[in-house]
Amino acid sequence: MSGREPQDPAWESRVRDSFGKQTFMSTLGARLTRIEPGIVDIEVAMRDDLVQQHGFLHAGVLASVADSACGYAALSLMPAGAAVLSIEFKVNLLAPASGERAVARGIVLRAGRTITVCRADVTAYSPEGERLVAAMTATMMTVRDRGISD
Amino acid sequence: MSGREPQDPAWESRVRDSFGKQTFMSTLGARLTRIEPGIVDIEVAMRDDLVQQHGFLHAGVLASVADSACGYAALSLMPAGAAVLSIEFKVNLLAPASGERAVARGIVLRAGRTITVCRADVTAYSPEGERLVAAMTATMMTVRDRGISD
Amino acid sequence: MSGREPQDPAWESRVRDSFGKQTFMSTLGARLTRIEPGIVDIEVAMRDDLVQQHGFLHAGVLASVADSACGYAALSLMPAGAAVLSIEFKVNLLAPASGERAVARGIVLRAGRTITVCRADVTAYSPEGERLVAAMTATMMTVRDRGISD
Amino acid sequence: MSGREPQDPAWESRVRDSFGKQTFMSTLGARLTRIEPGIVDIEVAMRDDLVQQHGFLHAGVLASVADSACGYAALSLMPAGAAVLSIEFKVNLLAPASGERAVARGIVLRAGRTITVCRADVTAYSPEGERLVAAMTATMMTVRDRGISD
Repeated sequence: MSGREPQDPAWESRVRDSFGKQTFMSTLGARLTRIEPGIVDIEVAMRDDLVQQHGFLHAGVLASVADSACGYAALSLMPAGAAVLSIEFKVNLLAPASGERAVARGIVLRAGRTITVCRADVTAYSPEGERLVAAMTATMMTVRDRGISD
Repeated sequence: MSGREPQDPAWESRVRDSFGKQTFMSTLGARLTRIEPGIVDIEVAMRDDLVQQHGFLHAGVLASVADSACGYAALSLMPAGAAVLSIEFKVNLLAPASGERAVARGIVLRAGRTITVCRADVTAYSPEGERLVAAMTATMMTVRDRGISD
Repeated sequence: MSGREPQDPAWESRVRDSFGKQTFMSTLGARLTRIEPGIVDIEVAMRDDLVQQHGFLHAGVLASVADSACGYAALSLMPAGAAVLSIEFKVNLLAPASGERAVARGIVLRAGRTITVCRADVTAYSPEGERLVAAMTATMMTVRDRGISD
Repeated sequence: MSGREPQDPAWESRVRDSFGKQTFMSTLGARLTRIEPGIVDIEVAMRDDLVQQHGFLHAGVLASVADSACGYAALSLMPAGAAVLSIEFKVNLLAPASGERAVARGIVLRAGRTITVCRADVTAYSPEGERLVAAMTATMMTVRDRGISD
């Protein structure tokens, strides 16, 4: 897990630039707060316009930041010129996400030539402490020669 | 699948009221466009602030509306006084979501006393036609006596 | 879904031959009972040595036949010379699987160049009737030039 | 994760007895090789009658032992008199499972009153070393008063 050698010397700026193009992350107020080869953290602050019917962060918000964290953890290890696409993800909601902010940490479990499998844990932080609120597994694809790049 | 008898005579207003409290749906510009016992459609229009790095609707947006469509399809069959919680969902991204709008249709596959399993298909509509862009399976829980209701 | 044109004229014998090499299917007593382009049924009879602790078919048995049904539904549409590999699958257990036999029907939802997404429903049959007992979504990969074929 | 206090003083014999009733585990030649509160290992030896078409352990075999490992990790923390049921599981196949044996380690991620979420890693062992071959997330339910127990 992680600790891997990036193939693209420009991996970090590439991840940051691609994240900057995800306007949806900006709509959520989400920020890239950690970036290492194979590991990416994305943080989202609690906001009244991001909740479900009981006042907790909507599961879709947690899934969104976890998906991007997985995608960019995967991209950080991909060769130059390739693009990353989400094939699928699965997320378990472990506890209601309240508090001040949530952080999704995406980690590469296995990076293959075509398929990269990642896990993300989403932790919520409040004055009372921290709590694991969601756990994702995601499958990412390295896309080459299809007219898109990251 | 569907065609089921609701247990709560007020099922429709209950779903609409609960959806109205999901501020995140309003942030996405998502609307409830169909509601039957065991079937719920949620529509989201393409917007520049909802995309990923290649200009397609972010997978998290599709997952968000599909999760809510599944949750409300499940809620439509639950007894009065209960609340619905997402336990987990899994979504496959089948094609890039471009076009004018996407519609998630959530359908109850099995409604049990505690666990309801749903599927959602997300279809994107463009002037050129329609396309299945995502397929979800979701597990919902009927929650009683925990201080929350829908 | 389904009704697709196979790319390999020998698709049917290819699926049957590959299934014949899955010794685990034979260990389960599983049989290929339907095969069309994009649709494959695999049947397993109830047996005392296939159960979990309460006497129902083990979830792993259901997952095994559903995975093979999805894989062969995918393979039926793949070009000659390619091989099929399971990337991941997710299965919901909807009801205890009792009765005389269970049939997993795998159907291709989307066949792409590299990724094929399938769904499988597993139905249990007993003298009292039939019952949907499991629902799978599976992601399959078309593998070329890696020294394996189907 | 793990390190939890079991609620049932007889948790260990309860897990062993229930595993002993899973005839399918015995059909696979699978053995319980580690058992702690919240952590269970199940080992399966490579056998010619457990493979898929390329000679690797069938994904269904890996899923079967991982599902049982998750289920028994969950059961080890459940109150006396309850039973465990698999609601759903999702498994990523990370590498072909060859070698001499595979070990699924199930770990409880969160144990709730009704829902327990587990992860399992499946590692294959060969003379050349060990390799992570599959990663599962599973949702288990604590069942009370339904005429079954473990």
